Order: sequence, then C-alpha cells, then structure tokens
Amino acid sequence: MRFFSDNAAAVCPQVMAALGQVNQLDTAYDGDKWSKELDGRFSDLFGTECRAIWVPTGTAANSLALAALCPPYGGIVCHRDAHIQVDEQGAPVFYTGGASLLLGEGEGAKLTPDAIRAVIDPIRPDVHQVQPHAISITNATEYGLAYSPDEVAAIGDLAKSRGLGLHMDGARFANAVAHLGCHPGDVTWRAGVDALSFGFVKNGGMSAEALVFFKPELMESTLFRRKRAGLLFSKGRYLAAQILAMLDDDLWLANGRAANAGALLLARAAGERLVHPVQANEVFLKVTPEEAASLRALGFDFYDWGVGEARLVISWNQGEDAIRPLADAIAAL
Amino acid sequence: MRFFSDNAAAVCPQVMAALGQVNQLDTAYDGDKWSKELDGRFSDLFGTECRAIWVPTGTAANSLALAALCPPYGGIVCHRDAHIQVDEQGAPVFYTGGASLLLGEGEGAKLTPDAIRAVIDPIRPDVHQVQPHAISITNATEYGLAYSPDEVAAIGDLAKSRGLGLHMDGARFANAVAHLGCHPGDVTWRAGVDALSFGFVKNGGMSAEALVFFKPELMESTLFRRKRAGLLFSKGRYLAAQILAMLDDDLWLANGRAANAGALLLARAAGERLVHPVQANEVFLKVTPEEAASLRALGFDFYDWGVGEARLVISWNQGEDAIRPLADAIAAL
Amino acid sequence: MRFFSDNAAAVCPQVMAALGQVNQLDTAYDGDKWSKELDGRFSDLFGTECRAIWVPTGTAANSLALAALCPPYGGIVCHRDAHIQVDEQGAPVFYTGGASLLLGEGEGAKLTPDAIRAVIDPIRPDVHQVQPHAISITNATEYGLAYSPDEVAAIGDLAKSRGLGLHMDGARFANAVAHLGCHPGDVTWRAGVDALSFGFVKNGGMSAEALVFFKPELMESTLFRRKRAGLLFSKGRYLAAQILAMLDDDLWLANGRAANAGALLLARAAGERLVHPVQANEVFLKVTPEEAASLRALGFDFYDWGVGEARLVISWNQGEDAIRPLADAIAAL
Amino acid sequence: MRFFSDNAAAVCPQVMAALGQVNQLDTAYDGDKWSKELDGRFSDLFGTECRAIWVPTGTAANSLALAALCPPYGGIVCHRDAHIQVDEQGAPVFYTGGASLLLGEGEGAKLTPDAIRAVIDPIRPDVHQVQPHAISITNATEYGLAYSPDEVAAIGDLAKSRGLGLHMDGARFANAVAHLGCHPGDVTWRAGVDALSFGFVKNGGMSAEALVFFKPELMESTLFRRKRAGLLFSKGRYLAAQILAMLDDDLWLANGRAANAGALLLARAAGERLVHPVQANEVFLKVTPEEAASLRALGFDFYDWGVGEARLVISWNQGEDAIRPLADAIAAL
Repeated sequence: MRFFSDNAAAVCPQVMAALGQVNQLDTAYDGDKWSKELDGRFSDLFGTECRAIWVPTGTAANSLALAALCPPYGGIVCHRDAHIQVDEQGAPVFYTGGASLLLGEGEGAKLTPDAIRAVIDPIRPDVHQVQPHAISITNATEYGLAYSPDEVAAIGDLAKSRGLGLHMDGARFANAVAHLGCHPGDVTWRAGVDALSFGFVKNGGMSAEALVFFKPELMESTLFRRKRAGLLFSKGRYLAAQILAMLDDDLWLANGRAANAGALLLARAAGERLVHPVQANEVFLKVTPEEAASLRALGFDFYDWGVGEARLVISWNQGEDAIRPLADAIAAL
Repeated sequence: MRFFSDNAAAVCPQVMAALGQVNQLDTAYDGDKWSKELDGRFSDLFGTECRAIWVPTGTAANSLALAALCPPYGGIVCHRDAHIQVDEQGAPVFYTGGASLLLGEGEGAKLTPDAIRAVIDPIRPDVHQVQPHAISITNATEYGLAYSPDEVAAIGDLAKSRGLGLHMDGARFANAVAHLGCHPGDVTWRAGVDALSFGFVKNGGMSAEALVFFKPELMESTLFRRKRAGLLFSKGRYLAAQILAMLDDDLWLANGRAANAGALLLARAAGERLVHPVQANEVFLKVTPEEAASLRALGFDFYDWGVGEARLVISWNQGEDAIRPLADAIAAL
Repeated sequence: MRFFSDNAAAVCPQVMAALGQVNQLDTAYDGDKWSKELDGRFSDLFGTECRAIWVPTGTAANSLALAALCPPYGGIVCHRDAHIQVDEQGAPVFYTGGASLLLGEGEGAKLTPDAIRAVIDPIRPDVHQVQPHAISITNATEYGLAYSPDEVAAIGDLAKSRGLGLHMDGARFANAVAHLGCHPGDVTWRAGVDALSFGFVKNGGMSAEALVFFKPELMESTLFRRKRAGLLFSKGRYLAAQILAMLDDDLWLANGRAANAGALLLARAAGERLVHPVQANEVFLKVTPEEAASLRALGFDFYDWGVGEARLVISWNQGEDAIRPLADAIAAL
Repeated sequence: MRFFSDNAAAVCPQVMAALGQVNQLDTAYDGDKWSKELDGRFSDLFGTECRAIWVPTGTAANSLALAALCPPYGGIVCHRDAHIQVDEQGAPVFYTGGASLLLGEGEGAKLTPDAIRAVIDPIRPDVHQVQPHAISITNATEYGLAYSPDEVAAIGDLAKSRGLGLHMDGARFANAVAHLGCHPGDVTWRAGVDALSFGFVKNGGMSAEALVFFKPELMESTLFRRKRAGLLFSKGRYLAAQILAMLDDDLWLANGRAANAGALLLARAAGERLVHPVQANEVFLKVTPEEAASLRALGFDFYDWGVGEARLVISWNQGEDAIRPLADAIAAL
C-alpha cells in the first residue's frame, strides 16, 4: 500500500464522469460554458466577487499568482521549506521574470508575522537590495499544519501595512479547511489573501487546479501570462469540468475530510512518534531505519524524510480499511 | 455545424477509454509505466532512437523545442504567418529567455531555402544583430499545405550547412503524413528535423501533445524546463495514456486521414474558389461576404479569413454525412 | 578622413575637463551632487517636471525606457529599420522580460499614425496575440530625418487614444532639435512623448546618455532595473559630469548644429545623389561601386549602405575644413 | 575623512591621463586597438591564454560571468553574504535568465568545500529541484578575508569533481593578491577558477572592470550578452585605456598594497576590537554606539555594520598621513 503522496492517487469517479459529460464539440480554449462558470462558482463558494481560471498544475497556479503580485525585480517572502522554493525548479523565478524568494523560518513550514519581519526588516530600502513585494504561505503547510483564520489574518495585516501582496498555496486547501471547519472565505480573502492556488489534483482531480484572485483586477495580465506559458489548453472544458465536479456538493471538502480522517487514524496510532501535529492529510513520524524497514516489509511504502523520519500521506480514497493495518503496524513498532 | 477549428472537437472514444484504463494509483509525474513507454514507442514509429515527452499544448511543445535549440540571445527563422509568431502570445520568447523570431515569406505559410536565406543572409555576423540559431517550419502549414520529404530535406540541408537547429511544428502532423503517404521518419529526422511537436489534440486527443527529439541529448535540459514551466503534471499517466491510445493501431493516422477526406470533399465542391491546394484538413475559400452569410444562414459556422476569404477546418469526427451538406452548399453558391 | 559614424569621434574638451572637475571623493553610485542635479537641469531644459538619470549607452537608455512602458507580454511598435530592432541584439526584449517588437513601415525609417495603425489594427484583442503597449520612434531617424513637433504630436495623439506609451530614441536628438529650431519640449512632452533617450555620446560625450521621463512616476521601477542590469556605476559622478557639461551653455545644441552644418555642406554637393533629405548629420548618397572606390582612394572612409548607396556621418568636430574636400570630391564625381 | 567605501574614491592620475591619450577618433565599440590589447595583456599577466573584456561595473562582470557558467534553470552556490546575493538587486538572476543563488555559510563570508557540500549534497538530483551548475566566491571576501591559492584550489577541485563552473568575484582582487603575495595565476586558473571579475574601480579606476575567462570558449556567448545588456559602449577605448593604465607597471598591485597598508595600520591600532583578520583593505571593528559617535565627532565617517560593529574601508589614495589620526583615535577609545 502506497503512502508516498496524494498526488499519485487515482481520480475520483465524479471527476471521471464529468469528462464524459463535456465530451462534445464546444468553443475552444476557455470560451466554453463550463470555463465561464468558474468565476461565478468560486464567487459563490467564497462569498465575494472573485475571478478564477483553470491551470493544470499547482506550480503553474503558484507561479502565475506570484507573477501577478511581484515585479521581475521584486522579492517574495516564503518559508524555507515552501514548495515554491524547494520543489518547483525555480518556476516562480521563471514566471515573474526574475523575482527572488526571500526565505523565512518557522516550525512546520509555517510563517508568522515575526518570522516575516525577520526577513524583510533588515532589507535596506535602496536599489541594491531586492525589495519585498509579496508573501506566499502554504495552507495546509508542507508539513501538514493548517493556518487558522486568525493566523492568516495576522499575516494579512502585516502584508497590508507593508504594501505586500499575499498568496496562498492551497495545494491541500481542502485538507486545511476540512480541519479548520471554517468558511473558506475566513481563511482567505477575509484574512487578506489576494490570490489562492486552490488545489484539486491531490484531492481526487486529474489535471486541473484553480487559480483564484480575490482582487479581480489581477486576472487581466494573468490571462496573457497563462497563454504565453503554453497553459491555455485547446479543450479547456475538460479542465473546467473537473473543477466543477469537485465543487458540486462540496466534493472537494468531502474528499479532504476523508483523507484527514485517515491521517488522524495514523496519528492516534503514532502517539509520541509524531513530529508535527496532524492537521491535514500528512503524518510525519519519528522512526528508526529498522522500524521503517519493518513497515516496508509489511508492504507499506512511503518516503524517508531526512534522517529518522518518515512521511506518510493519505489520499482521498484510502479509507479506514486501507489505513487500519498501517495504524496497527505503527502502534506495534 | 461548426467548422471553426479542429481544436474544439470532441475527444475520440479510444482516448477517453484510455483515461479509464490508467485510473489507478501509480507513480507521480512521469515516473509511471505509460510515460516511460513514450521513448520506445516513438522510436519504433520513427525508426530511429528518439526521446519523447508529453506536454499539454502545442504552444508548450513548440516553445520547449525552441528553447532547446536557441539561446536567449539567438534568433529563430519562421514564416510570418507561423503559429509561433501569430498565435502564441510570445511563448517562444518567454521559454527561450528572449530569443527573437525572424520572419520569412512564402505562399501558404511555407518556407523554402531561398526564403530562409533571404532572412538570414543579410544579418551581419556581429554582436549588434541577433544571429540565427534555428528554423521552425509547420507541417502541415497554417494554410493546410504539406511539406514533402524533399522540401523538408532542402531546408534541413540548409540548416545543417549553417549550423541551425530545425524544428517542426506538427500540430497537424497527422494530416500532413496522411496526405503525403510517406513514412513519418521521411519527413522528419531523415530530412534533418531535430525536434518535432507531434500534435494529437487537434486530431482527437484531449490534452496531450508529444515533444519528440531526434537528437536525444536535447531532452536533458528540456526536462528541467518542462518542470520549471509548471508543465510536469502530477498525474502524467493520463497524458501518456492519451498519446499511447493515439499511437495504437495508428489511430493518429486514421484520424488524420478522416479529416483530410472531409476537406477534400469540400475542395472538390469549391473548385476555383480554393485559395490554397488542400493537402490537409483546412480549406480556404474565396467567398463574398454575402456568400459567407448565406452559408451561415444554412447553419454552417466558420471563420472569415481576412477580407473575402473563409477558413473551414474539418475535425477527425466530421464524416461524409456531416460534410456533404456543406459541400453541396458551397457548390451551389 | 573617417565618416563611418559619429559614435567613434573624440570627446569634446568641455566633457574631458568636466571629468577632472569631479575627480574627488564623493558619495558613490548616484548619491553625488552632480547626479542629483539631473532632475532639475532637465526639468529646466524641457520646461516641465521630469526625472532624468545617466546610463552609459543608448541601448541601455532605450531598453530601460521600454521596460518602463511595456510589460513582458506586451508589444512595442517601431520602424522595421529602428535601431532597437536592427542593432541592439534584442536588448529591448531582454530588459522588458520578453516583449515583442512590432514592425512598421515608412520612408526614411519614419513612422506615421497610418503606419502604426497598419501594425496594430489587425491585432486581435485576445490573449493569443501580443497586444501593443508602446510606440518607439527615433528622432532624428536612422536615415537622418527629423520628426517635426506636429508629426510627433500626431503619433502622440494616437498613442494616447490607444493607451500606448510613447518613447523617443534620441541618439541624435541634438541634431533633430538643431534642425527643427524648436524648443526641445515641443518635440517631446508637449507632443505626447513619455520617455526620451537623450543621446550625448554621438554628440561629443564619452560614456553618458540621459534617460528622461516626462512622467516622473516611471522612474521608480527604472532605478531598480538600472541597478539590476549592472548599470549603476560606483562613481556615477563621472557620468553626471559629462551630461552637465553638455547642458552648460547648450553645448549639446552647438555640437548638433556643427555636425548638421557639415552634413548640409555635403548635401549641397550631392544634389541629385541624395537618397533622403538631410535633416541631421547623416547623408545617404547614391553612388556606384566605382564612385565609392574613387572617394575611398582619396582617403574618405564610410560605410556602403546596401547596394549603390553610401552613408556618411558627420561628427561634432568635423568642421568645414575637414568636410570641404569631401564635398568637392562628391561634386566632382 | 571618509572611510565608507573604496568605490567612492577619486580616480588615480594614471587612469585620468590615459583617458586623454585615447581621446581621438578610432573604431567604435571594442574595435579599437586598446580594447584589442586586453586578451594579450591579461594572458601575459596570468601566464595562460585567457580572454578579457571591459565592462563598466562589478555587477555586470559578475552577472555576465555567471550567465556563461549557469543555464537559466540552474543554481549558483555562493555565500549568504556574497555581494551577488546581497547587493546586486538580483542581477545574476536577470543575466542568467532565472538561475537561483544557493546560499552557503562560513566565517567572514568565506566558503569552504564543506560549506559548499552542505548546500549541494542535499539537493535531490531530479527535475523538481534546482541543480547546481556553478560556484561563486569573492576574493577578497566581503569581510576582507583573502582566499589562499590552496583554499581556492580545494574549492576548484570540488567544482571540477561535480562538474561545476567556478567564478571569482574579484572586486578587491588586487587587495587579495597584494596580501597573499602570490602570482595572480596561482589564486585563479591554476586553482580551478574559470572566470574572474577583475575589479579596478574600487582600486583607483573610474568606470572599467575586466571580465576574464580562463576558458576562452566562454567568451563567445558573453560578447552577445554584453551587447544585449546595453553594456557595449560606443567608445570602448576609454574603458580599455583605464584597464591598460592599471596594468602598466602593475599599478593595480601598487594601489592594492597601498590600501592594504592603511588597513593594517588601523588593524594594529584596533587590536582586540577586530572582528575579522585584516587581509585586504577592510577593517571591521567592535565598537559601542558611543565609541562610534566619538569617532564621528572627530570627523571620521564610516558605516555601522549591524549592531556594535563598524566597517572602515581604505582607498588606494588614503596614505599613512590620512589614516594615522584615525588609528590613533581608535587606539585611544
């Protein structure tokens, strides 16, 4: 049983079905009726006017968002362990045309206003140094922690007071909201977020993420950048359909809850072994190499995470039956 | 009935079915077994060792190919009407990091060695002018003409003698090969082509094109550029599967032939109205605005192409039954 | 005697002297008192509030100006023969982060509103095509023609009505103003110009051009771009001093007049041989290869310009004594 | 008396005189005889075939060097306090087209093989992470430490074994060589350095640094990049002349020695207050705010460096007479 990553899971049936439902001639690119629904559907979901487009990957969503928030000569504050810094091959640099990532510290890949100030306050306000223009946070973080509405709002206040844009990488936004139990607007625009990469692929989708701007005016240049990056699909309706299927009946939230539930099952079994609190669908365990090997010998696959740690990620479709044996094995270590 | 563009058509059933067949947990990105088949499958098809990856759009395929062939300070010769110049929002400039497109002339968007020399020979070989590093041709061209193996080889010889890379935008490669009746290797690597954007989306695919390098060493940096551009899908198997389904039993060629056949039906009806010979699935007609209106009144939709011309594009699934009424209407104008 | 280009001439004595006068310890970069004078001095000269900085080359001035006026995904209309297109190695593309030059036609490298409309009107207002954001004209043009205030204003009106920025490449601005006899403000900001590359190097300077913004707010990001491009000299006072010396007592205008006078001397001798009216310091002649050879045999060096033409450029310090022999030789052909 | 930075000092008389000696008509750009001498002169100096060009700033030299060593999708290891990271506004990112700086640790801004391995060894060799392509070290470092030939060679060996290019930022190369007393080749190409930014501006020059490639083949693309960046001066002879004047009779070394001598004078006075050993022309002192104020009250200007430290930089022309009073004041604190 694989617990490498939620981004390798199968696609959920509602998304597969949606592909069939749009399999007909329609206007190319994003001129089809499904793509045109996105603005409205996300505005409804978030309770504010927003603009939303499909893009195929989280990296694309993040990079386009940051390019809308930061000029080529600017800097973007993010956590040292942020996906945009560690795992995106410099894509934010490419899309912004040369912006720099300014790296902050914090437990569990989580930034705080203090951590951000520690990055930006020492920057001399002169042309020799890259000036900050935006902040990017990941919710849930790369270590499975959820920023609460208050935590985001504290960062949002700082961003506003310094004139910085605020982006949220929501590759696991569903998991965060499912954990927080809040309205999705509470942890985004109401807390000062300007742009959200709303992830679906890790949550049961196939190839569609949403880039949502809570400042609608940011979309205009983004549409040019999306095309320029080769991201404007000819048959965009197959991406729109995936997203709409995930929004229908809050499937995104149900899938997020399901994955979180699996992670909690492991967390309870892990007890003292937990490296971070489990607030999403990722579980980081302290295990010796021998313990890791014994788990693998039982058929459980996962990544080592540095020395003496293991990362287990639960997917939307790994129900209790699938996870219970792993929980038992962990408890028995 | 719509004849706007083949890029808006439905996806063919074999491709849809293939998506279901890979709908299971597998390794993320391009680590799955289907993605790994691409090198071999395209090597078999072309009869030479090549490397191939999936990308979601033709713009991405073209731009990545050109970035592998041309440095940021170089130039790429293409036709004035080439898709990369006219319809890709500067994507080749973005991906190459600043290369310039050097525009040539020719009937039906077709370049010749003479036309290319007319572009590059006047360039002073000094650092003040952008020096050519690559040539890009489109086969079939944007006006539906097919370059024959000999025509490509003449350009390939020029490219080789001048030290230029040669890229082929094959958004409608299937249509070109179907028309030419040649081996796909004859019109590509045997004729000097280094990189091919092998299009499937216009030919019944959903969201996967192949970028094929006949010089395998060009792939290495491209893999980094693909990720950097946000084009490395988490669930790449759904793209690989589309391509494999199109290669199985030469479905790509069958679909290309079907679309071409429809275009020929129209061509025969159009007679003297034809602006260009019909060698693929596009038909350009001389029609007065009144004639165009009368066709539209009958329910046929298409683009005007400049003044006094109309463009009709036939899709893989528009069979004789669908096209005959239009052919009759054209004949009756 | 060399008539290749004014950019190879010696530096005029006032500029050399100015270097000595600032040769003392002062604040680095542009913090010195001379650099700080530029805003005021150019504001006085042009009769409006403007901001001005030194840069070392015309290419740098042009590129920074265009980067301030055009986003990476935008287009800049210029003449097909413009220096920014032909002789700057793609620098505008580099500085803008990927903008495209959109090429217009016109006699003597001169654009008109009609010529500009012919470029921009066919552009579809969609994300597939690069949209125009700015216009760049050269005054005097690459063929030595001066745009009059009315001609610039007509382009300025078009720019304003279409929301486009307007840049003037004034590598030979002094020659143009000397010919026109107008106030420098008449042919720039009063006519709608937003940014001016005010050239001094071709006019007796050593290594300093001024970039002047008539919209002061354009300067802010430019200061970052200048540093980022490695153009912020440690000892900027040696550039500021050159410019101030050229502004003192309108030396720039005197030098421009002197060069123009030499060109007119040749023009009168050339008569029917003139390819373009002489409105600056460049003279283009129809000469047979034999005639060109005979001039060279007399010791006059110059560039052939295509087939059957020669280009002669007069420098600020080539007085009547230096030019008369050439004029006589031309008259005697 | 100012001790802010050596980059604000006056220009030395030999350099000023050299400007006058080339003040005559000659070929533009770098076609003049002085520019053409650079390859040979630096080859003689370093004792190996090298290629060398003038550029106006250290930022330009560094960025061009790095662009020759690292692709847009690559990474460059440098110290966290390196000038290219801290003070160049992202210029290396701009010139490389998007490369990332990978930051290492070390006392006095000095890297070691271990420190470099600590940066690059954890990088997964996959396309998700930016792979290292080059190392950049500063000699003397930003804190005035000199890398010895052995120290550079240890890094050079690592670079070679990992296939990484090696760049040396030699803004204060003269000071380092003067301190080390070695042949300039020992601390560069013989130790594995591929590219050197050889600084002259901080050492008595006006506006010319040399970019020296010990792998001559790196120059070809660099010449295009230099032009493309607007760095190819029309009258390049005034830059070449500065450099040649500095090379004549090893003026560069004499100036470096003079500045170092002044720094040593301060170092001896400072005793226990020294933060770093003094191996070039920079002195970092532990001083309380009150002590710093008392020095300033005596007319000595300098930068605070963080809390409780002061940076004093000695220029080529600040002889013992100028420095003695400061040394006495420091000793008397």
